[in-house]
Amino acid sequence: MTVVYNRVALIGLGLIASSMFWSIRRGNLANEVVGYARSKKTRETAKRIGLCDHVPDNLEETVNNADLVVLCIPVGVMSEVVAQIAPYLKAGSTLSDVGSVKKAVIDAVEPLVPANVHFVPAHPLAGTEHSGPESGFSTLFDNRWCILVPTSSSAPSAVERLTNLWTGMGAFVDHMDADHHDLVLAVTSHAPHLIAYTMVGVADDLSRVTDKEVINYSAAGFRDFTRIASSDPTMWRDVFLSNKDATLEILGRFTEELFSLQRAIRTEDGDMLFEYFSRTRGIRRGILEAGQDTEAPDFGRSLIDKK
Amino acid sequence: MTVVYNRVALIGLGLIASSMFWSIRRGNLANEVVGYARSKKTRETAKRIGLCDHVPDNLEETVNNADLVVLCIPVGVMSEVVAQIAPYLKAGSTLSDVGSVKKAVIDAVEPLVPANVHFVPAHPLAGTEHSGPESGFSTLFDNRWCILVPTSSSAPSAVERLTNLWTGMGAFVDHMDADHHDLVLAVTSHAPHLIAYTMVGVADDLSRVTDKEVINYSAAGFRDFTRIASSDPTMWRDVFLSNKDATLEILGRFTEELFSLQRAIRTEDGDMLFEYFSRTRGIRRGILEAGQDTEAPDFGRSLIDKK
Repeated sequence: MTVVYNRVALIGLGLIASSMFWSIRRGNLANEVVGYARSKKTRETAKRIGLCDHVPDNLEETVNNADLVVLCIPVGVMSEVVAQIAPYLKAGSTLSDVGSVKKAVIDAVEPLVPANVHFVPAHPLAGTEHSGPESGFSTLFDNRWCILVPTSSSAPSAVERLTNLWTGMGAFVDHMDADHHDLVLAVTSHAPHLIAYTMVGVADDLSRVTDKEVINYSAAGFRDFTRIASSDPTMWRDVFLSNKDATLEILGRFTEELFSLQRAIRTEDGDMLFEYFSRTRGIRRGILEAGQDTEAPDFGRSLIDKK
Repeated sequence: MTVVYNRVALIGLGLIASSMFWSIRRGNLANEVVGYARSKKTRETAKRIGLCDHVPDNLEETVNNADLVVLCIPVGVMSEVVAQIAPYLKAGSTLSDVGSVKKAVIDAVEPLVPANVHFVPAHPLAGTEHSGPESGFSTLFDNRWCILVPTSSSAPSAVERLTNLWTGMGAFVDHMDADHHDLVLAVTSHAPHLIAYTMVGVADDLSRVTDKEVINYSAAGFRDFTRIASSDPTMWRDVFLSNKDATLEILGRFTEELFSLQRAIRTEDGDMLFEYFSRTRGIRRGILEAGQDTEAPDFGRSLIDKK
């Protein structure tokens, strides 16, 4: 593949940044990738495992002369970091991010971006329940979607170049405006995560059922909730705080719907339940056809070759 | 392995029965397995794929001379079927089931069981989102739990023999009383399924987000909900109707907890959210340690070798 950027800087070395590095290297999409993490321990891990070509000890050196800087940090600290790096960003370079929320990021970051830097917000819809510099792997973005949310100040050439990077990393690219992105993600990701966290919390709290029982008998459905509910707590706290309105709207709809199903159970309305459960199968079929999951039964997941 | 029963009869040829057949054959646990399904089409499929040694056209012939008869049918039709087979059950044989609910099954079935037949209710905690005679495979029960719920009339020798069968099929066996089983399952399975069905229903219903968007962007968490919510509608209707009280109790707790998290989002109580999300990670670790899931990231699930 063709080199898309000469020098890429990744700020924050968690699941997404480390997967980006391995994926960029796989596709030879950049001549040099520089990485930075606030924690010294993470930087040392990165050096040890060969994550990034260079791991400086400070932000200034990290973004120095970079053609693309990607913020791979929790949404809640992005503006603080952008304020620090803004003076050192190269003229004509692109600043992007991978945050799960877009409106709040744009509101917080865009005013701080120098006029000669292109800001192109992005959100790759890929992840696992693991986090940290050792959790990344080169195939994370293959056949997953990356949503770009260009603002009025994103130059089309900068958007195109970032598109080439994500395509090179194996992703499909789509565009959306920030509000719509945040609503779509509230449905497909944020509300499901909160619900999973809640269900796991309830199980943990229930004194009449022991933790051991919950753990041993989790294969019956609960297990998938625990996987979702073991995602990075800092990231998810920031997601809910910064996509508050859309998440609360979807949770409101969810509660309304849950109450109607609870009522059907209480009144023993079997027809309503059957009809409802039949309808939801259709969406599943669509996901299989779109290649966003496999038909394999939900276990025996084999380890993926890393790197 | 040693043959545990001479002749086993499986009534209903869906995911569980077909997996039992392949698993019994793998372990050589019975000399003969007879299978029956109400639908002619299912019986023909069974004959075509070699599912069961013999597939009679009626229940009488199916249970004739069987040492173990297992009801692998929706909970709602068990009493009707037991009423039909009761006169033909062999003296000294065992009747069991695989229903996801135990109290309602025992209440409905036990009064119909002849005095010279041992009734030993069971529930294997294993499954996938697939159903039907072609969905089974021999490894479904490996390292999963099967809960036996002996009643006052279950002879210890019959319980022991059924334990040997389930152990032979790769499962761990535990005992529980019916009420406790139903509560544990309401937490680990029934409430999570209803919640998943609800979330998928909400997404389907939301006019501002298209189905295509939901489908393409499902990798962000929603995908696991759709998998759970594509399970067999008849089975799940019956589960909720027959485990009404425990399910409603857990859903009540869930709603209470969800409201407190919604409130934390509304009031921007980041500390509460962070603390909550950190706590739920512990349960996940327990599930991994208990071997009830793998550490593999949630995709790239490879197809399991069938049979």
